[in-house]
Amino acid sequence: MKHIISCDQFKREDLENLFQLTDAMRGDLSHYKTGLADRIVATLFYEPSTRTRLSFEAAVLRLGGEIISTENAKEMSSTVKGESLEDTVRVIHGYSDALVLRHPDRNAAEEAAQVSEVPVINAGSGSGEHPTQALLDMYTIFKHHGTLDGLSVAVMGDLFYGRTIHSLLKLLALYRKVTVFGLSREELSLPDEYKRYLEERNLQYVSCRNFDDLPREVDVIYHTRTQTERNLNAGMEVEEFIIDDFVMDRFPQNAILMHPLPRNREIAREVDSDPRAKYFEQSRNGMYIRMGLLYQLFR
Amino acid sequence: MKHIISCDQFKREDLENLFQLTDAMRGDLSHYKTGLADRIVATLFYEPSTRTRLSFEAAVLRLGGEIISTENAKEMSSTVKGESLEDTVRVIHGYSDALVLRHPDRNAAEEAAQVSEVPVINAGSGSGEHPTQALLDMYTIFKHHGTLDGLSVAVMGDLFYGRTIHSLLKLLALYRKVTVFGLSREELSLPDEYKRYLEERNLQYVSCRNFDDLPREVDVIYHTRTQTERNLNAGMEVEEFIIDDFVMDRFPQNAILMHPLPRNREIAREVDSDPRAKYFEQSRNGMYIRMGLLYQLFR
Amino acid sequence: MKHIISCDQFKREDLENLFQLTDAMRGDLSHYKTGLADRIVATLFYEPSTRTRLSFEAAVLRLGGEIISTENAKEMSSTVKGESLEDTVRVIHGYSDALVLRHPDRNAAEEAAQVSEVPVINAGSGSGEHPTQALLDMYTIFKHHGTLDGLSVAVMGDLFYGRTIHSLLKLLALYRKVTVFGLSREELSLPDEYKRYLEERNLQYVSCRNFDDLPREVDVIYHTRTQTERNLNAGMEVEEFIIDDFVMDRFPQNAILMHPLPRNREIAREVDSDPRAKYFEQSRNGMYIRMGLLYQLFR
Repeated sequence: MKHIISCDQFKREDLENLFQLTDAMRGDLSHYKTGLADRIVATLFYEPSTRTRLSFEAAVLRLGGEIISTENAKEMSSTVKGESLEDTVRVIHGYSDALVLRHPDRNAAEEAAQVSEVPVINAGSGSGEHPTQALLDMYTIFKHHGTLDGLSVAVMGDLFYGRTIHSLLKLLALYRKVTVFGLSREELSLPDEYKRYLEERNLQYVSCRNFDDLPREVDVIYHTRTQTERNLNAGMEVEEFIIDDFVMDRFPQNAILMHPLPRNREIAREVDSDPRAKYFEQSRNGMYIRMGLLYQLFR
Repeated sequence: MKHIISCDQFKREDLENLFQLTDAMRGDLSHYKTGLADRIVATLFYEPSTRTRLSFEAAVLRLGGEIISTENAKEMSSTVKGESLEDTVRVIHGYSDALVLRHPDRNAAEEAAQVSEVPVINAGSGSGEHPTQALLDMYTIFKHHGTLDGLSVAVMGDLFYGRTIHSLLKLLALYRKVTVFGLSREELSLPDEYKRYLEERNLQYVSCRNFDDLPREVDVIYHTRTQTERNLNAGMEVEEFIIDDFVMDRFPQNAILMHPLPRNREIAREVDSDPRAKYFEQSRNGMYIRMGLLYQLFR
Repeated sequence: MKHIISCDQFKREDLENLFQLTDAMRGDLSHYKTGLADRIVATLFYEPSTRTRLSFEAAVLRLGGEIISTENAKEMSSTVKGESLEDTVRVIHGYSDALVLRHPDRNAAEEAAQVSEVPVINAGSGSGEHPTQALLDMYTIFKHHGTLDGLSVAVMGDLFYGRTIHSLLKLLALYRKVTVFGLSREELSLPDEYKRYLEERNLQYVSCRNFDDLPREVDVIYHTRTQTERNLNAGMEVEEFIIDDFVMDRFPQNAILMHPLPRNREIAREVDSDPRAKYFEQSRNGMYIRMGLLYQLFR
């Protein structure tokens, strides 16, 4: 049985098989649309993440599967009554053929996988991993550029807390000659453990403090929301990196602008009509990549 | 692509085509029950309205479609994080083939339709429109009386804030020689803009202050809940128009009594067994008229 | 039309027919998996009970039916606006082919059944009945021991408030020569009405105060959660009956240990690997027995 817990479990060829399958499904769904027939997938969300949940549910339904769902497992009667995650999993796997788990604890998905008799898919675990987000991000880059080898990728925003960035870097490290530019305020810099991770795998990492530090020939600009609630609590004044049409002018025509969404002010609305703005396409890719993953699990 | 945003978009023949289709589906569903096969409808409710949501969901399922749903979009993680309605729509339309939107803002459905790549159905937008409620109301009258031309319709309760009444009047205005009697306390009278609307379309409107002001030969009695929470806040003493068996005695045998539900005390329980009491049938008609609308959208 | 409201409505042969059907479905679902085709089941939960809801929903889906669902009917807009349960039922039965109702009021399911035009299934009503829990418990015992006649059953934990225990005793009373041992603190003893109920039906009931009062040759050990929140409020010190490997040593190899879940500390984790620990299997049986019940309702 396969679980999808961490980006660490994927090799380069896994990604490329997945991307190929996903493309094939988008091209002609008819061969795949009963791939999950008679299967029930349980979505068990201990913190709300409506878009992730809906995208998984749409993926299951488009493959002919069915859904049982709880939007707020934290207030589940059994959780309130003190049931452990392990016990909950051992109950829910009795009703379902796979478990999609969102949980605030870093190791929740791993713990669930240890007791589950059905595949567990990590849909985000606290400050830890969110592997399906990283896969859809990689798929979006791959679809546009045709490869990931040799790309220059600028990541920006909150590089310190940003789970999305951390997972993406792990998958980028599977490719050759990738250069990463990390643009953030100093206190939101990429943690040293990730810098070492990249270095050990021969990726070049360049810390940047303003847009001028970025090279003009960047291939991917990946922005993220700075968690202003955290900053405001800390009483800091927020200095943001806002991408507008003026900033976009410095980037090449073949670059793409990505964002995991939701965005606040860090990408101006005017940019939406720029053909390089791919964040809504990226979000849609999330449903397709999850279809690919689910299909692989059950074939 | 068609959106269903406002009662203004319907013509008399649209209504009659819809009613005919709906009747045909009720008569024999077998020709229609795959009308939404392979379609996913997203229900996106920014305020709770369980009955409207369930009736849409049942309609989708009876036509072979599937549902992804959020009961409380206001607490959606992305909304909490400051995402605009437009961004949310551009994400969700990536997963679904139609969007059913309930929102407290008057113009939400229109705004959603402007960015959505899939049909948007307005399931109630603040003090604005609730077109599917008006359509099911019209269908209920049409089924009983066979036409709407020449009818006398008494509307009562909260004519000032009552979105349901306002939408119904717009559709009644598509018919000939309709007379409307509006019974309410003075401070809950029909706003002047709706009186003008009716006048411009040659409907007669008669303001009433008590049951005795109503004619005996009325064809439709449409009661609504007075929003007592609002009144109580304002410190006013509530004077209600309560329909009981005694009041029903004054109305003809062929009249029908309607209510959008939920009711409080304004219709006494004893009236439920009166064959003219059609409010539960009216509610059930809601599912059927939504089936008709959805079928039209996707055929 | 059949409703499932109370354990009182079942005879011994009803149980055995149900168990036989359920086993047949588990053996080969293919003959049954369209048993609910074109049927919509509404789950209407006025208090959260995620596991019961998910197990019903999985049962419906595995038989080809569809679900409309509200997780928190108490906050349903219509309930907040003062709608009675009867009115809500008369609306929802217009959209659905069966109603699964969870409600804090003792008589809610009965009241719903009186106005519903579709079958009502009681999924737990306050301090009253939870018949499908009792049926799955009986099925679990039956599957293991092959009969219920002549068994020794130890029930323990909260015998005073425990709805689960009360419903189970009613069904055990349909069998011959059953002996029940009730182990609890004095203030959580089985109410006299249930003692009389058993006595009138020739079951022997033995009150116990510690593990040593139990016979060694017991066939079923049924533990339940002591509702510590209640005890703590009352300022009492909690003295629990904790089952661990040491306690299990005193019971025979053919006994089974059951629990309706969720558990707290009353069954130690170490017991999970004991082959006699059947509580997770019992929980899974819940889905199957509900499949059996639903199939019977619609055939």
